[in-house]
Amino acid sequence: MTTKEPKYYWEDFKVGEVQQIGEKRVDRDEIIEFARQFDPQPFHIDEAAAKRSMYGGLIASGWHTCAMIMRMMCDAYLAQAASVGSPGIENLKWLKPVRPGDTISARRTTLDTRASKSKPDIGIVNNLWEVFNQKGELVMSMQGHGMFRRRNSGGAAT
Amino acid sequence: MTTKEPKYYWEDFKVGEVQQIGEKRVDRDEIIEFARQFDPQPFHIDEAAAKRSMYGGLIASGWHTCAMIMRMMCDAYLAQAASVGSPGIENLKWLKPVRPGDTISARRTTLDTRASKSKPDIGIVNNLWEVFNQKGELVMSMQGHGMFRRRNSGGAAT
Repeated sequence: MTTKEPKYYWEDFKVGEVQQIGEKRVDRDEIIEFARQFDPQPFHIDEAAAKRSMYGGLIASGWHTCAMIMRMMCDAYLAQAASVGSPGIENLKWLKPVRPGDTISARRTTLDTRASKSKPDIGIVNNLWEVFNQKGELVMSMQGHGMFRRRNSGGAAT
Repeated sequence: MTTKEPKYYWEDFKVGEVQQIGEKRVDRDEIIEFARQFDPQPFHIDEAAAKRSMYGGLIASGWHTCAMIMRMMCDAYLAQAASVGSPGIENLKWLKPVRPGDTISARRTTLDTRASKSKPDIGIVNNLWEVFNQKGELVMSMQGHGMFRRRNSGGAAT
């Protein structure tokens, strides 16, 4: 990743393009492991308590869903891109529970791209992320801003 | 957690109140472990590549910082609250790198509270979260909407 020339630079993201990403099967033990470490609320870690909750069973921490999607993004294109991180996310919506055994996939739509004002070798890509379960239900959405080096900007690949 | 009466219900969150939360020392191995699983970009997992990057060294995945803050929220009050999850987050900003050895803390300010329109036993609390490092620099901010059961609403504690 560090020695190879990246395949995707800022210029390679085009407004309106749509990319399908995934899938990932959501594992019960992974839900519990993540939540024990980062979000130990009963409906994420305790089957019996989750059953009595308004969710009627275990659900993944919303942050776990974000993390799983991040991994799917890395595997799909970021690992091959001149990615230099993200300034942030807007309108992160956890719309429906993600449950053990669900299979999630994501759709990335490029909403907007712009050059950085402060860093001439960097451009920003504004993506809409929509996450679906195996029934086609929208379970999460967000707008994420990715920073990428510009082609021929020089400097190291990371 | 599931048998005890919660200490905090929706009514207990007051607009304008400020709560200090933390601290958490950010561990190098934890940064790498999280990122290997969820965000394996070179500047999160590879010291040498991170040194060559615009960050000049390893930094935590932004999602890892979110997850660490989530855990700090649970420890500080959610574990004792009638929390029933979150519909989402607005304006999540990763403002400065979080690095190995940093100590992060957070400040929660209640911006707004409102009863749920669709669920009479639930109320929503809109919090501003500001995350600082040991130098007092603001490294992350977000607005998070938490859902809580209302006092005397009946039902299970989770």
